[in-house]
Amino acid sequence: MKRIYMDHAATTPVDEQVMKAMNPYQCERYGNASSIHRTGQVAKEALETSREVIADKVNASPEEIIFTSGGTESNNFALKGVAFANRDKGRHIITTRVEHGCVLNSCRWLETQGFKVTYLGVDENGMVRPDDVSQAITKDTIAVSVIHGNNEVGTVAPIREIGRICTENGVYFHTDACQSFTKVPIDVEKDNLDMVTINAHKIYGPKGVGALYIKKCTRIDAWQHGGGHERNLRSGTENIPSIVGFAKSVEIACESDIAHMKGLRDILITRVLSEVLDCSLNGHPAQRLCNNANISFKGIEGEALLLRLDLHGIACSTASACSSHTLEPSHVLMAMGLGAEDAHSSIRFSVGKENTLEDIEYTIDMLKKEVGLLRKISPVGGINV
Amino acid sequence: MKRIYMDHAATTPVDEQVMKAMNPYQCERYGNASSIHRTGQVAKEALETSREVIADKVNASPEEIIFTSGGTESNNFALKGVAFANRDKGRHIITTRVEHGCVLNSCRWLETQGFKVTYLGVDENGMVRPDDVSQAITKDTIAVSVIHGNNEVGTVAPIREIGRICTENGVYFHTDACQSFTKVPIDVEKDNLDMVTINAHKIYGPKGVGALYIKKCTRIDAWQHGGGHERNLRSGTENIPSIVGFAKSVEIACESDIAHMKGLRDILITRVLSEVLDCSLNGHPAQRLCNNANISFKGIEGEALLLRLDLHGIACSTASACSSHTLEPSHVLMAMGLGAEDAHSSIRFSVGKENTLEDIEYTIDMLKKEVGLLRKISPVGGINV
Repeated sequence: MKRIYMDHAATTPVDEQVMKAMNPYQCERYGNASSIHRTGQVAKEALETSREVIADKVNASPEEIIFTSGGTESNNFALKGVAFANRDKGRHIITTRVEHGCVLNSCRWLETQGFKVTYLGVDENGMVRPDDVSQAITKDTIAVSVIHGNNEVGTVAPIREIGRICTENGVYFHTDACQSFTKVPIDVEKDNLDMVTINAHKIYGPKGVGALYIKKCTRIDAWQHGGGHERNLRSGTENIPSIVGFAKSVEIACESDIAHMKGLRDILITRVLSEVLDCSLNGHPAQRLCNNANISFKGIEGEALLLRLDLHGIACSTASACSSHTLEPSHVLMAMGLGAEDAHSSIRFSVGKENTLEDIEYTIDMLKKEVGLLRKISPVGGINV
Repeated sequence: MKRIYMDHAATTPVDEQVMKAMNPYQCERYGNASSIHRTGQVAKEALETSREVIADKVNASPEEIIFTSGGTESNNFALKGVAFANRDKGRHIITTRVEHGCVLNSCRWLETQGFKVTYLGVDENGMVRPDDVSQAITKDTIAVSVIHGNNEVGTVAPIREIGRICTENGVYFHTDACQSFTKVPIDVEKDNLDMVTINAHKIYGPKGVGALYIKKCTRIDAWQHGGGHERNLRSGTENIPSIVGFAKSVEIACESDIAHMKGLRDILITRVLSEVLDCSLNGHPAQRLCNNANISFKGIEGEALLLRLDLHGIACSTASACSSHTLEPSHVLMAMGLGAEDAHSSIRFSVGKENTLEDIEYTIDMLKKEVGLLRKISPVGGINV
């Protein structure tokens, strides 16, 4: 059966060019980058070249890029590392109600360690209001963390404005850019960013590798202790093949792919909204990730629709992949003011560069069929109605 | 030039069979194991099959294996996770002076968080005395952590005896088995182990993946928070290709490779000790890892010898790769009672399954030549004499 993957916000296939870049570092140039001998130094060179590529993409210096095992680690490191290092300065952190679980749960853990966290609300489009950030900052505030491109609804936050506010108030500003990296420009200087979380497996790179941009002179504690790798900020043998692959995935990300994804996304949104009754787009209509279409189908159980689409070979998701561990309605949609029923009726399609117009048209056809069918089964308009 | 890699304790090349197992999960079966759709479920199945293979190797249940990004993360997680979860029970941890940097530095960090750590000494062979563990346990002790196969000198600790003492005293027992895993049998039940750190890149698997065995009912806090992966103990998108590769590396580890490595190691040790003057073996002569030969060459600067051997294409190390970030003499050798000079004069050769007798013979020839040369340059017997 034809398989149409439209869950690129969960993860992406590794690009063939990335594989080609990584492979020599598995079996031939396999050295430990901390080894003094030539085999080690070859690995070390690959490490530093990769660091330059990634730093360049966000207008950072190479030494400001610290490699980690992925977005979750980077977010944990940023929040906990800054919190513990600045305890003498203050114990208040500001974030939002629409963050990824790894930011929210790191913050909840910090609350058990004597920190106070403000979780800002968002508007009906999932947009954080810079004024809210401004008003939430107190003398005790040490850091603000706001997700750049929302992983569920795709809304892109006004990080430049928030960054300016943070800088004016002397508090650190961190953004989780796992979904937006290479899709929305990031300039750590112009955006006034102190920390940025990025990773590879959302952009056709390998799983298990990410990075944290840390601006020079940021007071941050190492969170993973050991042999002193990564300027003593993140210990652990450097994962050279994956880091090389990460850099390659950044190198191959291009405007034409973004335009392609945006084109497909727009067709999907426009046609679904006009051809399937009673559905609505979640997230900001314009300020959104090029690949995200999050749609509520009134009266439908999202998970039931997802499973029906899966039978037709179409892969998409309800909320985020990580939220599949819970049965709770999406915290992001709830924060945007949706009721539990509407939140449960939403599906996230996230297109990729390899998707075609044919994929989109097939998906729309199957959506029309299955939404009609599911609504018939539950004629009053859905399981919970 | 011929390249002879004898630094397998630092890292190993990825085995071709491991590559073959991993590759399909990069570009084809690339799903996020937390996704509900079929692409995700294929990944999930691979995850659970891999977990079974690894659990089986140490006589654990699959649900007792938690995947991480590597040995350093597993050791951080074990120590900090157990310390924070058992603060109400006690605040004392026992470890040794010959641990890997990631255990030592995690312990040092815990000392800044209100914990007390006892660092046990070792005998002249690097062996921990079970009696010392026994005597160090107090009412306040919550955990003991002892490295299984020492990464520098190869001494294999009496974990079964220590495990028994810990169980009798009701304290958790953790061992860092990164160097010994698949080389020395581990049976979590018979050895009375509550936590075991293992990883892939020392056994011909990929870098960036490891696991922590956690015995059922162990009180341990998650250390990386997020989407609730790995039974809510370690969040972060599961690194399926590397986990599959890890399992394959465990599957292919075999007795004949161990015998081969041990054979080469013995030839290397015996011939170097008899044919190169004034050198001595560090670590236990019998209770040692099958691939480790750590030798002190009196009057020689280890790093100078390493660089000379590198010119002949031979890759080995002084102390561990991770210690290359510091210029201090090996803390392991110092704990064994060596003076700073002798510690600085040691070289670690760690053979691998792909090494040949010819490799060993060439290495011995080059050693004889270079040790002689270096001693001539410094006729009084070394730089610091």
